[in-house]
Amino acid sequence: MIDAAFVNHYFETHRQAILDDWFALLRIPTVGADPKRLGDCARAAAWLKQFLKPLGFEAEILTPGRGLPVPVLIAERPGREDAPTVLFYGHYDVQPEDPLNEWQTPPFEPTLIDGRVYARGAQDNKGQVFGFLQGVKALIEAGESLPTIKLVLEGQEESGSSALNDLAPILKQRLKADVMMVSDTACGPDNQPAIVAGLRGVQHFTVTLTGPAYDLHSGEHGGVAPNPAQGMAALLASLHTAEGAIAVEGFRDRVHHPSEEEMAIARQGMLTDEQYASIVGCPPAGGEQGLDAVVRGCFEPTIEINGIHSGYGGPGSKTVIPAKAVAKLSTRLVPDQRPEETFAAVRKHLEAHCPRGMTVTISEACAGAQGFRLPLNSPVFRLAADVLGQMDARGATFRWAGASIPVVARLHQITGAAPLLVGFGREEDKIHCPNESFGLDQFVNVMTWSALMLKALAEC
Amino acid sequence: MIDAAFVNHYFETHRQAILDDWFALLRIPTVGADPKRLGDCARAAAWLKQFLKPLGFEAEILTPGRGLPVPVLIAERPGREDAPTVLFYGHYDVQPEDPLNEWQTPPFEPTLIDGRVYARGAQDNKGQVFGFLQGVKALIEAGESLPTIKLVLEGQEESGSSALNDLAPILKQRLKADVMMVSDTACGPDNQPAIVAGLRGVQHFTVTLTGPAYDLHSGEHGGVAPNPAQGMAALLASLHTAEGAIAVEGFRDRVHHPSEEEMAIARQGMLTDEQYASIVGCPPAGGEQGLDAVVRGCFEPTIEINGIHSGYGGPGSKTVIPAKAVAKLSTRLVPDQRPEETFAAVRKHLEAHCPRGMTVTISEACAGAQGFRLPLNSPVFRLAADVLGQMDARGATFRWAGASIPVVARLHQITGAAPLLVGFGREEDKIHCPNESFGLDQFVNVMTWSALMLKALAEC
Repeated sequence: MIDAAFVNHYFETHRQAILDDWFALLRIPTVGADPKRLGDCARAAAWLKQFLKPLGFEAEILTPGRGLPVPVLIAERPGREDAPTVLFYGHYDVQPEDPLNEWQTPPFEPTLIDGRVYARGAQDNKGQVFGFLQGVKALIEAGESLPTIKLVLEGQEESGSSALNDLAPILKQRLKADVMMVSDTACGPDNQPAIVAGLRGVQHFTVTLTGPAYDLHSGEHGGVAPNPAQGMAALLASLHTAEGAIAVEGFRDRVHHPSEEEMAIARQGMLTDEQYASIVGCPPAGGEQGLDAVVRGCFEPTIEINGIHSGYGGPGSKTVIPAKAVAKLSTRLVPDQRPEETFAAVRKHLEAHCPRGMTVTISEACAGAQGFRLPLNSPVFRLAADVLGQMDARGATFRWAGASIPVVARLHQITGAAPLLVGFGREEDKIHCPNESFGLDQFVNVMTWSALMLKALAEC
Repeated sequence: MIDAAFVNHYFETHRQAILDDWFALLRIPTVGADPKRLGDCARAAAWLKQFLKPLGFEAEILTPGRGLPVPVLIAERPGREDAPTVLFYGHYDVQPEDPLNEWQTPPFEPTLIDGRVYARGAQDNKGQVFGFLQGVKALIEAGESLPTIKLVLEGQEESGSSALNDLAPILKQRLKADVMMVSDTACGPDNQPAIVAGLRGVQHFTVTLTGPAYDLHSGEHGGVAPNPAQGMAALLASLHTAEGAIAVEGFRDRVHHPSEEEMAIARQGMLTDEQYASIVGCPPAGGEQGLDAVVRGCFEPTIEINGIHSGYGGPGSKTVIPAKAVAKLSTRLVPDQRPEETFAAVRKHLEAHCPRGMTVTISEACAGAQGFRLPLNSPVFRLAADVLGQMDARGATFRWAGASIPVVARLHQITGAAPLLVGFGREEDKIHCPNESFGLDQFVNVMTWSALMLKALAEC
């Protein structure tokens, strides 16, 4: 009889071999957005294919025909025919490692310190993916029967999952499933296991504001030439009201409020301002004033500035009027908001507010993804809650993540599988940041969840 | 009898030797603000001392006791005792060369293309300084009698001239003079020779806005965490009204309007919007709407953003809420505005408008310098106008430069010498920018002006 104690024992017994394999995967710098790392992504896909073979998976590496040909690995392991078919989705690509000088250990040399593995991707998502695969392995070695498991492991989650769109016809044929398991999310408050009942959508793009043909002397031209750094500040400031509300006409047209049940559950997980500040280093003062943090973080859209760069940034001063300013923007969307509509609204706003004497250009716009909210009382959610109850006496909670896994909505469309998002991330993992890490206890939780849930599905 | 033709002939006869010396000086990367280039600055000062010796100058290298010890070269060559003593001020330091990838030739390997020398400092100020020294040399070799010439050549003009403040007691003793010649400015419209009748003051500082303790995932935290990139945009936008007027309370308290005579002369030099756009690449749409470009560029103060840096700036996207944002600001001041007062007003404004949940810090503030405007009918200005009339049939015009030479006001205080600023820069020189250059014809103009004006002063 397999249970949490069994998985824990399995991990301790095989600890060195598991870490060796996991670290080998983390050493490959799979920044899927960077064309220079295409070879590394191909290497990671090949490594995963090799790893899956002895587990009985028939794996294949697909390469998209358009865009950057970052490979997608799909695999299948036949199981009980009378059980629901499980699709597991994960991504082996990672966020860029910059700023490199803020890392205390090399981002692509995994380092175990006090029970935590430090590396880019240690958690997001290589750590959770590898935890799932080790859960499957433990289950197989325990002689348990499994459901049919299909895998799709991609290398462009952090940069728009365009390959999956390109490969949609093949995926539709090969990945039909009943349940889509994903471990790319975090626990609830106090690390209580959490089922994700909703995600926000996302869409991002680059804004460039140009003025003079070259950097100007700010004395000779100050007061005469338009200043793109100043223009960009005014342009970006115009996206929100002084109270932090989105000021873009039409952007919020399809925003629906959450139900009372959803709000009640979401509120349970709410950190106090003090708790938030002690973790993050500043109070939760973002977004529209007067709204609950829960509403702002889960049920409201955002327009965020992810970066601004213009002119001089070194020590001391350089008195120039910069020729241009570049900003990286992203929006988070709630269900029913359509990325093409919200993007059009922001574009229209930016063009209408383009400062005098300057030219605004919008580029690198991704197709974006819608958000979703799932009903809380589905059979799969009830089964998952049972399993999580075996792992934690408090049982499971529901979460509505402010983050996005754009591909989940898309894969649901393609495969028909019902999304089941349970992950074991924590704030301290610092995903997307320097010094990303994942605790070995969290890793074992992913293994345990995977093994127990697959067993439960095989038996239902 | 020495005249423009003589100097021209002198240049052509000694062309190779002059270029060899000038290029040797340009090859030294004298970025005075960069501690790593301190040795280069010392090398340049030593090189200049060596160059001045055979011309009969007694030169000495002074090193300030505080701050970065970038040396100051002072020198004296005794001349006619009955003539006014001339102080020449120049700087051998240059602006940083970044962005390096926009240079078409290496910034510190001077390259002669179509009669123009391309290098950082080719014009500002090594080119004009070396033109002056060659003018002195030509005059000496022609057997003319000269006035007493004192020189002060510093290496921190681009970063605040702090050494000169530190050395003020010595300079006060050694550099007493009647007229202070400076060639660090540009011609008037259509390259007509111009006497600078006024300069703006300057003051600069760095603004840092911090929020979260580390970069956050913009999905997990979007709408909850304060975003310093967005906060910086709002903070900087608040410095101006929608019409481009300075919105900082108290900042403009001491601004005085120019006289009608000054306005009439300044207007003569005004470019049309089309002329400006064809040179600079965008219309003169900066500053406060409804004011003449001449007023905005010469007689009004500015607050300029010289740089903003926050978060991600690479290809594609990185969906973070940046932990901080940094901006470089500078102000240009008109006569009677005091840098310590205007800085205090901006600081107060920035602190009062600090966005919710974030912390604003102001650092790297320089002491700054006042601007000045000189009376147009002084004896020195009349003599200079005569000399420039010999060089150009159109005679001289007056200019009020929007730029600053902070040290001029300070040296005037220290030495009592009346500023006489005549330079031969042009817009196409692109000072402070990649691909800075100086035309050989402009260089010869500096030589000619120096030789003829020194001769006129010796004889007056």
